[in-house]
Amino acid sequence: MDQKLKIAILGAGNVGGALGRIWAAAGHEITFGVPNPGSPRVAEALAPLHGKGAAATNAEAARAADVLVLSVPWPAAKAAIEAAGSLHGKILVDCTNPLAADLSGLLIGLTTSGAEQVANWAPQARVVKAFNTIGAGNFGNAQFGAQRADGYYCGDDAAAKSVVARLTQEVGMDPVDAGPLRNARLLEPLALLWIDLAVNQRQGPNHAFKLLRR
Amino acid sequence: MDQKLKIAILGAGNVGGALGRIWAAAGHEITFGVPNPGSPRVAEALAPLHGKGAAATNAEAARAADVLVLSVPWPAAKAAIEAAGSLHGKILVDCTNPLAADLSGLLIGLTTSGAEQVANWAPQARVVKAFNTIGAGNFGNAQFGAQRADGYYCGDDAAAKSVVARLTQEVGMDPVDAGPLRNARLLEPLALLWIDLAVNQRQGPNHAFKLLRR
Repeated sequence: MDQKLKIAILGAGNVGGALGRIWAAAGHEITFGVPNPGSPRVAEALAPLHGKGAAATNAEAARAADVLVLSVPWPAAKAAIEAAGSLHGKILVDCTNPLAADLSGLLIGLTTSGAEQVANWAPQARVVKAFNTIGAGNFGNAQFGAQRADGYYCGDDAAAKSVVARLTQEVGMDPVDAGPLRNARLLEPLALLWIDLAVNQRQGPNHAFKLLRR
Repeated sequence: MDQKLKIAILGAGNVGGALGRIWAAAGHEITFGVPNPGSPRVAEALAPLHGKGAAATNAEAARAADVLVLSVPWPAAKAAIEAAGSLHGKILVDCTNPLAADLSGLLIGLTTSGAEQVANWAPQARVVKAFNTIGAGNFGNAQFGAQRADGYYCGDDAAAKSVVARLTQEVGMDPVDAGPLRNARLLEPLALLWIDLAVNQRQGPNHAFKLLRR
């Protein structure tokens, strides 16, 4: 489990940028998959990786990758997956949330979820929902006094989930297995609760959910 | 805020029974509202109150109450509210979750919630969603090492919410204001996540969500 991974991060925004920076520092090989690999915005995401990452099209990034990380805004998710080409047997970590643009709710849920939709778009991939229930500023910065933020994940492939658990620990969070992929129907509302407190209720991003056990 | 309340608990099962026992010990006046006040099951719920509680029909229990607590199974919720009669100006704490009978999902959500449905059934009441995101065995027993379980609540009436915050503290949990009543769309999935871990994933009831802050 401690071998280095080739990780393609589809999307180089807040979430993908933060994950790429941290995983590059942990020794993984990071390639951002983006529509325009040479754009200034991509250069900005690459700068904190200190030469340890690259940018490519989604198809190029995906081809060599062990793990793909979907971290584009929800409306761009389907196109990003299509642009990645064949994902046969690849681990696809879905970090998205199907948010209404005004953050008033989720666009889908109850009888399906963003993650299940992603799995429909990428039927040959091993999809794990993760890194969606907390703001990206807490990646690598997840200590709250004596407690650590949890990283909830769910999926139907045990081996893929164990890779995600390791990647969760590498961003400083405690991995919590939240069950099968359909439980994204529960993790996506949890994400919106985090966002609602941070944005709609103006409490800022310095909070995190923790599952206490005894 | 430290005056004693007249609390009508509609439903004398696990949730209502545990809340009634704890709030009676805290000095509140508890009346269970039930279809058959003289039934053996109700006597069983009353026994741990050591004479400090009573049972009545929903209408009788509601009439004198400052606060009503809805703690029946979801399929019985509408009838329990109707049987309570006028709830003009009363605080109505909705502890229910609109669970599928097999715990595979929620029956409503995304664009509405159990709590909003309850508010439609009781339009003159001041509805607060609370006590739904953790198993009843943790009421009065909410310490996890140095941490306490959170009690999340949401609603649109600030004064009603402050009463619920106090009642949450009295069951040993940290009250967390989760925003307007529509955020029950997020707290009800959080409840199912708690239940899924406990029941479907067979981890038992000794876990609790906590919102870490810094």
